[in-house]
This record gives sequence, C-alpha cells and structure tokens, in this order.
Amino acid sequence: MSNDTQLKRVLVTGGLGYIGSHVVLSLLLSQRYLPIVIDNCHNAFPEAVKRCAEIARDELGPNAPQPLFHRADLRNAAEIDAVFEKYAADGGIWGVVHLAALKAVGESGELPLSYYRVNVAGTISLLESMQKNNVNNFVFSSSATVYGTPEVIPIPETSPLQPESAYGRTKAMVEEILHDVCRSGTLERKSPLKAVSVRYFNPAGAHPSGKLGEEPRGKPGNLLPLLAQMAIGREKSELKVFGNDYPGSPDGTCVRDYLHIMDLAEGHVLALDAIAVPESQPNIFSNNDARKDGFYRAFNLGRGKGQSVLMMIEAMRKATGFNYQYEIVGRRIGDVPDLTANPALAEKELGFLAKRDLDSMCRDLWNFQTKNPKGYEPSA
Amino acid sequence: MSNDTQLKRVLVTGGLGYIGSHVVLSLLLSQRYLPIVIDNCHNAFPEAVKRCAEIARDELGPNAPQPLFHRADLRNAAEIDAVFEKYAADGGIWGVVHLAALKAVGESGELPLSYYRVNVAGTISLLESMQKNNVNNFVFSSSATVYGTPEVIPIPETSPLQPESAYGRTKAMVEEILHDVCRSGTLERKSPLKAVSVRYFNPAGAHPSGKLGEEPRGKPGNLLPLLAQMAIGREKSELKVFGNDYPGSPDGTCVRDYLHIMDLAEGHVLALDAIAVPESQPNIFSNNDARKDGFYRAFNLGRGKGQSVLMMIEAMRKATGFNYQYEIVGRRIGDVPDLTANPALAEKELGFLAKRDLDSMCRDLWNFQTKNPKGYEPSA
Repeated sequence: MSNDTQLKRVLVTGGLGYIGSHVVLSLLLSQRYLPIVIDNCHNAFPEAVKRCAEIARDELGPNAPQPLFHRADLRNAAEIDAVFEKYAADGGIWGVVHLAALKAVGESGELPLSYYRVNVAGTISLLESMQKNNVNNFVFSSSATVYGTPEVIPIPETSPLQPESAYGRTKAMVEEILHDVCRSGTLERKSPLKAVSVRYFNPAGAHPSGKLGEEPRGKPGNLLPLLAQMAIGREKSELKVFGNDYPGSPDGTCVRDYLHIMDLAEGHVLALDAIAVPESQPNIFSNNDARKDGFYRAFNLGRGKGQSVLMMIEAMRKATGFNYQYEIVGRRIGDVPDLTANPALAEKELGFLAKRDLDSMCRDLWNFQTKNPKGYEPSA
Repeated sequence: MSNDTQLKRVLVTGGLGYIGSHVVLSLLLSQRYLPIVIDNCHNAFPEAVKRCAEIARDELGPNAPQPLFHRADLRNAAEIDAVFEKYAADGGIWGVVHLAALKAVGESGELPLSYYRVNVAGTISLLESMQKNNVNNFVFSSSATVYGTPEVIPIPETSPLQPESAYGRTKAMVEEILHDVCRSGTLERKSPLKAVSVRYFNPAGAHPSGKLGEEPRGKPGNLLPLLAQMAIGREKSELKVFGNDYPGSPDGTCVRDYLHIMDLAEGHVLALDAIAVPESQPNIFSNNDARKDGFYRAFNLGRGKGQSVLMMIEAMRKATGFNYQYEIVGRRIGDVPDLTANPALAEKELGFLAKRDLDSMCRDLWNFQTKNPKGYEPSA
C-alpha cells in the first residue's frame, strides 16, 4: 500500500513521550510522513514506538509505514548529527518535529540549569545540526505557558509572551530564537528555515485503541493521569485542588483548555502539511513581512473551551465510576486562573479543529489505563 | 610584594578582547584577584595578555601578579572543564567574569544561530562547568541594548528588558537564565550561585600607558575606533552619520553614554568585591527576596552623561587634530535615539563612579592608536 521511500522523512525528537508517540502515530496514519524517532528514554519507553507500529498495521494493513527509532540525546550533538547523516545518502530527512524537552513547571524552578541545557541549548544544537544537513522544515512544541497570565481570554496568538516559570521561559526563548533564525533567511544557511511553533493547551486522553497513552515514569504531574491512576488503584495519594477562589471560573477552580491528544497530534501533521505547501502557492507564510518574520508562524492548539478542575474530576468520575475524594487547599504558586485558547487562527490557517469532546478524552484515557494498568512495562 | 597563591583566581572568558583585556589588567592591579584568561582568539590577539603583564610590572614592580592564558572555546565544554580541573587541586577557581561573546548588533541579525550558540548555549555550558566544579561567583557582561528603546532617560535598572536585536536578546536571555539559577539556590548545586550582570553603556578609550587598547580584527564596527583609525590613516572609508533628526538630542544625532574603558574595567573588580563580601555582613544581596531573586543583581555601568555622535567627532578632532569630513545620511534601522544610563544604583551599591572624562577617553584612545598604528600585530 505505502512505499516508505515516497514518504517525507520527519525526525521526531522526544518521539517516545506522551505527545511525541501520538504525533508519531498521526504521521504514520497520514501516509505522507515517515517518522524517525529519537529519544533519550529519560521519561519514556521504547515500547511506545512498537505500539505505534502495531496501531498503524491494525488500521492500514501489513504494508503500513513503520517508524524508525534511534536512542539519542539532544545534549550530545554528535549523536544527533549521526542520525541526520545516516539518512543523508538516501534522500535525507525532510523535516523535524521537536518535542524533546524537560516539561515540569514546578521542577523547572528547582533545576533551571538542566531545563535551559536541554530545552534551549539542546534546541540550538539541533538547529545547528539541521543547518549543517540542510534540513529546513521545523515544527516546535511550544506551550500556552508562554503567555504567563494573559490579559485576554480566550488567548489569541498576539498575546505578549511573558512566561512566569523557567520552563515557560525556555519555550519562549526557543520561539524567539526560531523567529530570529527565520528572519535571517539565507544569510546563515543554504535555504531559509520554515518554522511553526505550536502552543499546546492541555492535552488529554489516549488513542482509542487503548494501545497508546500517557505513561510517565513515577508519580504523574498532571491532573488527568493522576485521576486515572487513582481510579485504577495505582496512585493512592490524596487529591488536592489548589484554590477555589479564582475569579471568572464557574466553581472558582482553575480553568484549562483540554484537548484530545489525537487532535493535538494531528495538529502537528497539519503544521507539516502547511510548511510543505510550495512557495508558488498561497501558504501560511504568504502574508508574512519577510524581513520581519521570514517563514515563521506560531499557532495555538486548543479547543477553545475552558474546563475547571472540578469539571474534570466530574468528567473522570463519569468515565471511571470512581468516587474521587478531594480536598480544597490554598492556591499553588505559579498557577494561572484561566488558560483557554482562541483557536481561530489555527482553524483558519492550518484547518485545525479539535473535534473530540471531553467525554472522549476521559473514556480513551480510562480505556488505556484499564488495558495497561502498569503502563508499558514488560508485565503489561 | 604579592603572593599569587593568596589571590582569588578569576577565570576571565574573552579576556583578550577590548573590554576583557582591560578587566584582566584591573584585576592584576587590584592585587586581590589573579586572572586566568581564556579566549578562542576569534577577534583578539594573545599579545593583549602580555601587554597586561607588562603594565602590571610597570606599575607594581617585578613581583606583580601575572595573568595566565589558555586558548579555549566556549563552544567546547571539554576545553572549559579542563581549565577548571587544571586548578582544582590547587584551591580551584574562585569566580568567573564572563565576557566571551559575539557582539556585533548588525551581524547578529545575519548570523543569529551563531549568536545564540556562542552567547546563550556557550553560557549555559560555562554555568554547567562552574556547577560541576563548585564555582559560584559570577560577573556577566551584559549590555544597555537589553533595554531596547527605553521609556525613561536616564535609564534605571528597573526598565523592562525588551531588546530589539538578536544580540540584545542573547544578553537578556542570559540574564534571565542567571536570575532563574540564582533563584533556585542550592536545589541544583552545592552552593548557591552569586551573580551580577553589569550592563555596559559605551566603553571608550584605552589604558593611558598606550600599551593596551581596542584592537578589532578587520574594519571597526564602533564609532571611536573608526575615528581613531581614520586619523591614523589606516581606515579610508567615508564617515557616515546615521540620522540627525532624533528628538531630544542637542544636534539631532544619536546620544550615547561613553565611559572610559578603565572605569568600566574597574566596575568588574567592584562587582567581584561586592560578591566576595561574606554573607554575615551587609552586602548587595542583603535586601533581595531570596525566593524571588536569590543572589542576583544587575547594575548599569555608565557615566550618566549623554554625548551625541557629533559631539564625539568634535572631541576626537580635538584629541587627534584630524579634520573629519562626514556625511549625514538616513537613520540606521535598529538605532535607538538615546542610551544614557542612570548610574546611581551602581554608585550606591558597588561604589562605582566613572570618573575619567570624555577628553581622557579620546586622548588615551589616540595615544594607543599612535603607539600601535597597526595594533598588536607583530610589526607593531
């Protein structure tokens, strides 16, 4: 059915992670891109790439494209160069989806140098490898945290970048670096860099097959995986809700914009598709001021629907049947009252529409959790 | 007179450059610090360190402390680690003055990735080497360009960081990284980092001996070296003044805050002195909110006196006797009308006062230029 050599090779850094693995799957299912996964397995398991391959075969048949995996660490430029060079003779790598990063907001305040090393210096090093190997198509995994405490809700892409954590600063810095590199055109490189930053709101859920999902090492840092692990009995810790006096929230708890992980993953494919449009045709860069922006764009990937913490607990109660007990405690430092996207630009320009609803997210998450009570570990 | 083993060893990155070499000299003359210079010789000559040694002997006698030099490149972490390790057995390196950077605003728009690689990723790597080697005292060479187009003149340190060039963004990013690392205290390291960013206004002049000065490779990018090289007949190019319609300037040309290079250099010694004050005594960090700022401060190093381009040309005419012909052309993109420091905070907290006047700057510059018509090159 598919001939792997006709697919555009896309390096997916951090491709074993929760978002990365679903991006890899979406690339396979698109039948336009062949994912080449690199990951250092810091917080993820190689099993994820096997699961992607399995789902692709389930859906597309035995000739489905198969992902490739190389264990490599962004902090080691030689390892990354080697991956680019491995494919150079054979048509090379067409583009990069860069997700590899440290990602815990709280931890970033404790280990800032590690965050800057991996997220900022690692990206600079990756961009150098790309430049050396004349790879010029780039999708960057950014985050709604770059907006800090935004003034306008829902948040448009024009909101100022004013992150309030070291993690958020690493993401905003990379966006600025990309913007500068794109703006410089071909002054420093053979072909101009075309880059899209996708600013994630709150990804949730899992692939509906139950074969792929969020599988953090250690205690989950995010609400939904925690709720799922509590329901399966893997996580006994008490559930704390930080603050119920936030203004503008239906029940006073923090509001976030959850979107289904498969919607988010497909957003990356749409971003690559948009970058791949030839310059002779109207494309997402057509209206850019070349001197000011080059080929650089940033898009929100969200649903545009705010959900409070208590609404999420209730949705998970419906999906799991588990009777969550929670305690309302004081606000947590660094929490922003409301992070709801204005997704209009991504819909207009990328054709992005997060269509899976909250019940799907909770159902698919629970399906994954029950089928993988211990995650991807060998006993699973 | 001095026993080198009693001096605090200070690594000076970029210590062969214009500012770096004068910092090295000031450290030697202080008789409190022993400079260990590293430089990749990209835009500077090892001769500078010999000149520093010579001036120190001239002023302090034959037992003057002597600088050490290692050729090393910030982009090569192993080279930097090796320097720290070389001294580890013998009491180690006490602190770092970090000046190594690419520094041309215009070029940074053409070669942004190189700028981010050297200035940002290079600093992250240096901070990692310091952390590994438990070196915790840091003075960072920042720049008035971090202020972009400031709203308040003279500019206080509280002006927002809103740089308008890739170069300026590299400096602002490093400041943010330092701030985060300082804020994290000992979560990621044995001892907390104590860091001071010094934001330079426009350094000018040379050491009055005429043995040390600004010696850029290639055509000078800054006004004063250009004027000096025109007067000596080394630079034939026409003199262009970019814009004479800037509001608030006495003659419409851009206003900058020039300070004597020896004043600027001594500011680094004062910053190290301030960092060295024991925590048991009142010090520049005493009033910090530890959780918000840790041991981090930023200071302007300027004179607080604005000089227009035409005023500088006139001052150099007086010093050199050269009859400069210039042409007024349109404004140059990226030029800010007025960058004049409010130096009150540095005076109050560091005891910094740039006391050498404009005539001294021009005279010392011209003295260096006439004694080194071809710079540090062997024929000089």
